[in-house]
Parts: sequence; C-alpha cells; structure tokens
Amino acid sequence: MRKVYITGFGQTRVQEHWGRSARDLATSSILEALERAEVEGADALYVGNALGGELTGQEHIAALIADFAGLTGTEAVRVEAAGGSGGAAVRLGYIAVASGLQNVVIVTGVEKMSDLAGPAVEEALATSADEEYEGVQGLSPVGLSALLMRRYMHEYDCERRDFAPFSVNSHQNAVNNEYAMFRRPITVEAFEKARLVADPISLLDSAPAADGAATVVLCSEQVVGTRKRATVEIVGSASATDSVALHDRGNPLFLHAAHESVQGAYAQAGVAPEQIDLFEPHDAFAILSALSLEACGFASEGQGVRLAMEGEIGLGGSIPICTMGGLKGRGYPVGAAGVYQIIEVCQQLLGEAGANQVDAWVGMTQSLGGTGATAVTHILKGPR
Amino acid sequence: MRKVYITGFGQTRVQEHWGRSARDLATSSILEALERAEVEGADALYVGNALGGELTGQEHIAALIADFAGLTGTEAVRVEAAGGSGGAAVRLGYIAVASGLQNVVIVTGVEKMSDLAGPAVEEALATSADEEYEGVQGLSPVGLSALLMRRYMHEYDCERRDFAPFSVNSHQNAVNNEYAMFRRPITVEAFEKARLVADPISLLDSAPAADGAATVVLCSEQVVGTRKRATVEIVGSASATDSVALHDRGNPLFLHAAHESVQGAYAQAGVAPEQIDLFEPHDAFAILSALSLEACGFASEGQGVRLAMEGEIGLGGSIPICTMGGLKGRGYPVGAAGVYQIIEVCQQLLGEAGANQVDAWVGMTQSLGGTGATAVTHILKGPR
Repeated sequence: MRKVYITGFGQTRVQEHWGRSARDLATSSILEALERAEVEGADALYVGNALGGELTGQEHIAALIADFAGLTGTEAVRVEAAGGSGGAAVRLGYIAVASGLQNVVIVTGVEKMSDLAGPAVEEALATSADEEYEGVQGLSPVGLSALLMRRYMHEYDCERRDFAPFSVNSHQNAVNNEYAMFRRPITVEAFEKARLVADPISLLDSAPAADGAATVVLCSEQVVGTRKRATVEIVGSASATDSVALHDRGNPLFLHAAHESVQGAYAQAGVAPEQIDLFEPHDAFAILSALSLEACGFASEGQGVRLAMEGEIGLGGSIPICTMGGLKGRGYPVGAAGVYQIIEVCQQLLGEAGANQVDAWVGMTQSLGGTGATAVTHILKGPR
Repeated sequence: MRKVYITGFGQTRVQEHWGRSARDLATSSILEALERAEVEGADALYVGNALGGELTGQEHIAALIADFAGLTGTEAVRVEAAGGSGGAAVRLGYIAVASGLQNVVIVTGVEKMSDLAGPAVEEALATSADEEYEGVQGLSPVGLSALLMRRYMHEYDCERRDFAPFSVNSHQNAVNNEYAMFRRPITVEAFEKARLVADPISLLDSAPAADGAATVVLCSEQVVGTRKRATVEIVGSASATDSVALHDRGNPLFLHAAHESVQGAYAQAGVAPEQIDLFEPHDAFAILSALSLEACGFASEGQGVRLAMEGEIGLGGSIPICTMGGLKGRGYPVGAAGVYQIIEVCQQLLGEAGANQVDAWVGMTQSLGGTGATAVTHILKGPR
C-alpha cells in the first residue's frame, strides 16, 4: 500500500448549464485539474456518474469523457453508487494508486440534470431506492428522507424549525464560493415558511438538482516528488453498505454504513472525531446531515440537530460542516457531489478557501447513496 | 502488487428468467461462488451491470445485492462500461486484491433484460453509443456493427456467409453447456437464410438479450493457501478505451482499445498470442469476433474471418474461441457477459469443461463496451 496524494483539482460552477453537455462539463474540470497537477495524462480515469442513462441517454460515459478530454486510449470506467458515486470513484482511484498499479489517476464526478423536467428527474432519482419495495410505491429520496425526519422529530422531540440551522449554514457558506449555485443567505424564517416538498421537508431543506463536474488528480509519492505545489494526502478511505430499503433496517435513525465506513477511515488515518477540523457531509437533506454527524461520532444519537442549533457546525464552531455551501448551497449534481466535497476539503487544507477559510489540518468527507445504504468516507491531511 | 487467484465461481443459466429479479439471480450466483471458494464473506463486492436503471428502474444495485446475498454492510460498488461492465468489474476486483487492501473480493455481473419488450431494450442498448452523434440518429449497437461488417466485407472482399463459422461454432459449443441459452446447433445454410436485423447482420449473427448472473471470488495468495481446490491465477489484466463514436476513429476496422489492452495483458503475463490456448472474445456480433482476433494478434488485418473459415476457432483449432457458446450461444446478459467469460476460461483451465474440454493452461477473455470503445482483457493461468 503506497501513499496517495491529491495534486490537482478542477470544478465547474454548479448551476443549470443549458448550453453544456456532461462531456463538456467533465472536460473543463479535467483540463483544469491536469493543469494544476502539472501532468498531461493519466494511467486511468474513474468517472462517478449516477444518472447519465436516465437523464441524457448516455451510458458508457467514461470512455466518452476520456476521448473528449484528450485522453483517448486511457483506461476509463464509470462507478455508480447513487448519490455516493463521486465518493466511490475517488475510493477506486485511491485503491488503484495505493496498489502500485497506477501512478496518476484522474477521478471525475459529473452529472447533467437540467435536460429533463422535474418529475422525470425525481423518477430518475428514485432509482437509488429499492425499486421493488420502495420505488414502486412512489417513494423517492425526498419522500424517504421525510419519513426519516418525521421519525427523528418524534423520537427526539424536536421540530421542523430546529433543522433550519443546517440550511442557513450551507447557504451562508455558499455566498463566498464562486462555484456555488445559490450564493445568497437564507433566514430561519424563510426556512420555516418555505413550500413543503414532502412534509416535513421543504424546498429550503432540499439540495437542488443541478449540472456540474469536478475532478481530482491522484498521484503516488514518486510523482508528487516532482511537483512543486502543495498537495493533500488521503490518509483514510473506507466504504460500507446497509440495506437499501428503510424498512429492512433495525434502527433507521442510525446510519450503519456511515458508521462502519467512518470507523474504517478513522482507524486507517489514526485519528478520532475530535481531530477532524472540518467535515463535508452528504447534506442532500438536513436530516441526513444530522444523522451523519451522529454516525461519525460528532454528536450522540439524537443530538445532531442540537449540535447545529448550538452553532457548532459554523465556520467558527467545533466541527464546521458544508464549509463551501455543501450540497444544499453549492448544489447537488448527484454523481459529482462526492468529488466536489473532496475539492472543498482540499481548498480548506491548502488555505485556499478565501472568506470561508477555517483553521484546518485534517478534513473529512462522506458521500452517501440513497438514504445511506452506501457510505464512502475519506480523511485528508494538509501539507503543514 | 500481489498475486490474485480465482477460488470460486457460480452462474445462473442464461435465459429469459420471467420469475426472477436481478437481485435474485445475482444472489444465486454469489452463494454458489462463495460455497465453492469456501469463504463466507468478502471485503468487497464489485457489480458489473450495464442497464439496470433503464431496464428495471434500479440503480444503486451493488448495495442492494450485497444486502440480499447476506453480505449486509460489505463495501459494494457498481461498475459500468456498457458491454464491458463485467470485465471492468473483474479488473477493479483484481486491482483491489493486488493492492493488498482487500483479501477476498466478490465480482458479480448481472443483467435483467426480459422485463421490457424489444424496442425498449434496443433503446437501452443504444446508450452505449455516442448519444449526441450516434444514438440521436437511431444508431444502436446492431446498426453500428452492421456498418463495421459492411465495411469489412468491402475492404477485405468477403461475403456475409463467410461470417457463418463464428455463429456455427458458438452454437455448437453451447450444446454441451448447461448454462447456455441456445443449446442447439445451427448450419451455415440457416445462417444464410436468417432474417436480417440490420443488413448484413442477421438474427443468427446477433447475441441475444437475456437474463443472467455470474460471480467469481478473487483471493490473495494468503487466502488461497488455505483452500483445497485447484485455483486459477489472473496473470494479466489490462483495460483501454477508444473513441466511442465510430466516425471519430481513424481506421474503424482496427480495434485500438482491444489492441492496447491485450498488449498490456500480454506484457504483464509474459506471453504471446501463440501461447494462448483458448480465447473468449466479445462475440456480440461475428464482426466483433473477427476484429478482436485481429486486434489480439491471432490473425493479421482482414484475416480474422478467414481464420474462422479455416476451422481454426473450433475446439480442435489453433485458437478455440467461444468454447462454451460465447455471447451468441450462451446468451448475452450485457453487464454479466464479462464474468461468464472468466468462469468459462476457469472451467477449461480446471478441466471442468466436459465435452467441450480443450487442452489448456493459459486462457484469455476480452470484454468490449459499445463497438470496442472500452476493452478489458484478462489472461488466466491454470494450476498445472
């Protein structure tokens, strides 16, 4: 097992890119990442993409992107784990470099969602649920998350407005991120008044479907030796799964896959929760942020929401989350989200986070698929 | 880089499994493979699946299968490279074990295609082509392969009937394979008279869409040490890509990705084409078999069809191909095909191929995506 470093990254702004295709967005992010990494090609390209088949009629997208990005011939494969696709692609790239088999690997997350209208997108998103037991009943990710949130409110005696700090924090942090979709703050009052999507989840509690692509370049130590810029090391990488259907889980309010994967990552990195300086959770809905904070040991069960209410998730808090806007504020191009998270932690660890800079040496990301049936956790360490 | 061994495998019969879902088929093959491998769990599950989203409304299938197969919690991810999905999943499993990170890895290929009717399946299959330039024109895999075949016939002065030996060979070999879809021989005359699907490709030249699942268990040397049964070693593994759209290729009759990947595999294994005792090509259409034989060095350009006409691809020939029926005779559950190929080579190398047994120590598989834009090649060595 060799050490693995992130030597370059590139991202497009997350928005509705009406004039740009998935391959175009991916190529932009790849060229930017390669330039920063000071490499011209790679041994392989891993593409995280969740819904290209449903939303754009394009499977086999890894070979397509390799060709379009000027990497014709390069080994390329697509990795899919629903919303966890981006994180899973980073993990497979990590394994390839750690193995000694590949020295330079490009990992790209990309999703093109605005070509289809709302209901078709929701139908596509629902393929992340258990189709035969959940999807067939009309349950989509927002519906399933609403069930979780309702149960949480019941079990832990809290209200819908108690979840507001998550969205308020994400939107506030997105203001200063030039790649974010929603660069304006929201208030607790706006959160309370927002139109419900699936009671108790409102529009201001739902990460928006969007278009975007993000790329990181992973390199072995040998390659890094010749690079001049500061790099970030991947010191922990782990993934785990759980039952896809909520009804198959003993305690749906505890994300077992998230817990298992974070334990693996902590063990590999040799760190504990209190040593994590910032955390990028999969905040597709606030309830998922709360459950992730609990599964990762930042709060005990039922206390994730309280952590947010007490201001501990802000840039100056004990565990800053969604520091560049998260899925909610930056936007959520599904298969790309996990790679955006990695880039945002790199920005923080390299002191490039601008107005949102936190004092950080160790950062963590967690990419979830479905309502947490897949969880991929990465711990990164900065150069200082 | 550690050595990687195949210690177990399992497969369902390829057919229209009207009463069985993808997760059900996958589970059967996994349980069979685990039993043979004499292990009860694994460090990870890699699932090759091409069209689950389009055909069954189920993405996120790796976590789903892990749970259903009794591997709840296990790291699981889906790998997609169109028709090359199965081969690509094997390769990622190989990398994971070779890396030293994982000791036991399950690789499952699965596809459930018979839930939808013909046109919908063809539309789904067309997502392997370049959607914006080929798919949008109505070009599907059979149409694209027909263009290749027509060009081949023109360039190399041969006729449609000259391709018959490929299908005749595949069907003949499928007769004795209890897992095959079409267990009856066909004649050259039947091939000639068969209804055209996309001129010059006929029904008897098209591998059938079907349902099926196949699983291999990959283990490190440490784990193999305690296993009693004979095992097969993966001595070469390589993957490469090419332009997805045919019109982007300089010479569409030379499969560059196939060539690049086979050269990588030959180099790693330290073998040349003449040392390969059997070859399982991606015979979705006969033209692809011919082009693969040429790209892999078994025939010079334009001579692949002649090799078949001269009987060299039969069980007693210089390079037996499709020894258990290939995609054409065994059937073609898209994302599973690459794993079926690996199992069939294992059967040959372990002396378990029954009436189709060839004298073999080194075997090779090649899994293609689209019309060869993705190619994954594996070289396996038997225990003797």
